[in-house]
Amino acid sequence: MAQLRGFASAAAQGADIPEVVCFEKQSQWGGQWNFTWRTGMDEHSEPVHSSMYRHLWSNGPKECLEFADYSFDEHFGRPISSYPPRAVLWDYINGRVEGTGLRDWVRFSTAVRTVTPHPISGFLVTSEHLPSQSESTEHFDDVVVATGHFSFPHVPAFEGIESFPGPVMHAHDFRGAEELADKDVLVIGSSYSAEDIGIQAHKLGAASVVFSYRTEPMGFGWPASLEEWPLVRRFQGRTAYFRDGRTRGFDAVILATGYRHHFPFLPQELRLRTANTLYPDRLYKGVAAEETPHLYFLGMQDQWFTFNMFDAQAWLVRDMILDRFAIPAAEVRRRDIQRWLNRMHAIETVREDVEFQADYIRDLIELTDYPMFDLDAVVEIFLEWKHDKQADILTYRDRCYRSVMTQTEAVPHHTPWIEALDDSSAAYLSTAEVPVA
Amino acid sequence: MAQLRGFASAAAQGADIPEVVCFEKQSQWGGQWNFTWRTGMDEHSEPVHSSMYRHLWSNGPKECLEFADYSFDEHFGRPISSYPPRAVLWDYINGRVEGTGLRDWVRFSTAVRTVTPHPISGFLVTSEHLPSQSESTEHFDDVVVATGHFSFPHVPAFEGIESFPGPVMHAHDFRGAEELADKDVLVIGSSYSAEDIGIQAHKLGAASVVFSYRTEPMGFGWPASLEEWPLVRRFQGRTAYFRDGRTRGFDAVILATGYRHHFPFLPQELRLRTANTLYPDRLYKGVAAEETPHLYFLGMQDQWFTFNMFDAQAWLVRDMILDRFAIPAAEVRRRDIQRWLNRMHAIETVREDVEFQADYIRDLIELTDYPMFDLDAVVEIFLEWKHDKQADILTYRDRCYRSVMTQTEAVPHHTPWIEALDDSSAAYLSTAEVPVA
Repeated sequence: MAQLRGFASAAAQGADIPEVVCFEKQSQWGGQWNFTWRTGMDEHSEPVHSSMYRHLWSNGPKECLEFADYSFDEHFGRPISSYPPRAVLWDYINGRVEGTGLRDWVRFSTAVRTVTPHPISGFLVTSEHLPSQSESTEHFDDVVVATGHFSFPHVPAFEGIESFPGPVMHAHDFRGAEELADKDVLVIGSSYSAEDIGIQAHKLGAASVVFSYRTEPMGFGWPASLEEWPLVRRFQGRTAYFRDGRTRGFDAVILATGYRHHFPFLPQELRLRTANTLYPDRLYKGVAAEETPHLYFLGMQDQWFTFNMFDAQAWLVRDMILDRFAIPAAEVRRRDIQRWLNRMHAIETVREDVEFQADYIRDLIELTDYPMFDLDAVVEIFLEWKHDKQADILTYRDRCYRSVMTQTEAVPHHTPWIEALDDSSAAYLSTAEVPVA
Repeated sequence: MAQLRGFASAAAQGADIPEVVCFEKQSQWGGQWNFTWRTGMDEHSEPVHSSMYRHLWSNGPKECLEFADYSFDEHFGRPISSYPPRAVLWDYINGRVEGTGLRDWVRFSTAVRTVTPHPISGFLVTSEHLPSQSESTEHFDDVVVATGHFSFPHVPAFEGIESFPGPVMHAHDFRGAEELADKDVLVIGSSYSAEDIGIQAHKLGAASVVFSYRTEPMGFGWPASLEEWPLVRRFQGRTAYFRDGRTRGFDAVILATGYRHHFPFLPQELRLRTANTLYPDRLYKGVAAEETPHLYFLGMQDQWFTFNMFDAQAWLVRDMILDRFAIPAAEVRRRDIQRWLNRMHAIETVREDVEFQADYIRDLIELTDYPMFDLDAVVEIFLEWKHDKQADILTYRDRCYRSVMTQTEAVPHHTPWIEALDDSSAAYLSTAEVPVA
């Protein structure tokens, strides 16, 4: 959606833009924010894309992800809280593009099967319109991969897990914590999915949650029924045996064990192979495949920033495609990548980590006409957010921040997160909050 | 496994056989019988193949599926009961091929990506060794598709199902009914998966099960807590609204709504497109692609017979490949297919349905050297089985039949199915039953 908006933005300013075709295997746009009740494989036997769950709320302040060219104020016409639920965020990202004609650029329900470098130039893209099962192959000069990296679960095996008598699912297939009420829940993992699914389970009445970590605990001030234990070594029936010798019985196991950067539609030699890191190697400016001209990747970084980083990337990719930005020679690209990698490897503090990504985005925006925004202020919001979570993992979503785009102060939601069980858009927007002045 | 055994059988009799390469995306053979705790996508982000659940027992008598060239007596050395649990059946099908050198013909953990007709003859097969992500393309003269048709779920949508607050899963992702204890369970569907998952849920303590049918109920004599209702029209939260106006709240929804014949690795024009039927059109002798020489499909039929039908098919495909059986001209093939289709369309009774498939298998065996067996006797066992199920859906698995291969009478299992909660191979084989005389 950022890439479409980027091209539309150039066109609106009179630029001559090429034909843009966006292949979207789902029938609706929004990617992760396009919630589906389906798990595993979808109605066309395609892997389900979204890992979203029913009652997910943003786990970071909306002030950190706000578009620089489309504010929350512009969309909602009034201040809202800092941590909107999923339906509200989908509404926001949809609002920027809906009704602008951009839908015409998208081939919905169409999966890309293969991308093959054309012997002379560009790529042959074979796609399948899923409802009709009709396949077609077309030539494109440039390919932008914007499939994200939170769709293909990393699912490690644990000895004896096949004997566990309750639900065992990866976070990717988790759709809601209602079924965990009164249950003893084991969440394996110690990153954002683990943290949020664990407190979701607590919010919806789980009897207990044990988080199991491989390297180190998250260390939040958990309520009494949530604990962090070391990694599970094995299962026998409903009993988990932990590395520290403890054992405990559970009713459900959630594997919040991360995702794989996976691009089955690309030939082996074009696949981006990377762990989840702030600066995947072999991407010039974090977007252009170092060895393959005209192949781009968006959003493949480990993410503090999200929507506005994707925008900055999409704007630069657009300018690379429009030849407004000249991609330099191989040695220059390598030096640039290496400079970022060196800086990344020297990171020691959380502040440096966030600042790294802020500086990366600043570098991109300075090369494009995406509206610059106060990245330093956003860094401070991220650090405050980290601090708020540390202070109280159950109430941090009740806090409010100030938009760096509009200076609007968020207003508290009418119901504290821990008590808000109806998180539909209608419920969220149901009170007459003060209109934007 | 049948195809490998078929070639090995010819080789053992001195035939000159071609190089046989079997691509198996899992790390173990056994197909559906190779149980996995995984659901959705596997460790390599491939769709999980098996739909097997932890406590599945054969739902038909083993006397109906027994191999004609490898009896249960030969494998177990003593009579066993007629309805073995999954681990015992895997042991049986594995026992026929394990230790015979056939493993060397299999490339495990290797997924076929594409099969492309070669411009001159045969096919180019591109496969990926999943652990190393290394891809290779090789030429083959013949391709046999033996991927089954119970791996890609058909998952219809129901209005409001996204608001259902409990587990919603297709039968393909069902791994055990333990989590359904004390729950009100809705099973949508009225075929084998629905029936068996419903009684599994009952066996493991579900408070109630409602089966929801589209066209007609299964009509078994259910225990009081199991009922059949018409199709669900919509959901609102945990409440299902049925076509007959009734409503009811549920804790879990199982979609036992069938599977799709799906062959993503084949180009569109080579894909078999068929519903689940006794005689899919465009397959000569039920195996040879009518329009594409050297392309074969095994086991694509709706199945009364299973293992021994797959054998008969595999033996004939082998003989087609070895040019022992000459595939006739197009008109002859069409007439043969049409004759079977005409007969199928005229079927009116269950007996005719089973006899149809028995006669189909007889036709195949008469064309090959697979050992002929008493197909008429197996038809009678199928009809008796149907009768037993009608008489009591909870006890039919305690009945015993006589092998048509060895005349051995099955012996009752030490524990009635409804009480047998440990159905491991060890538990199943734990009593000293009378050895085969």
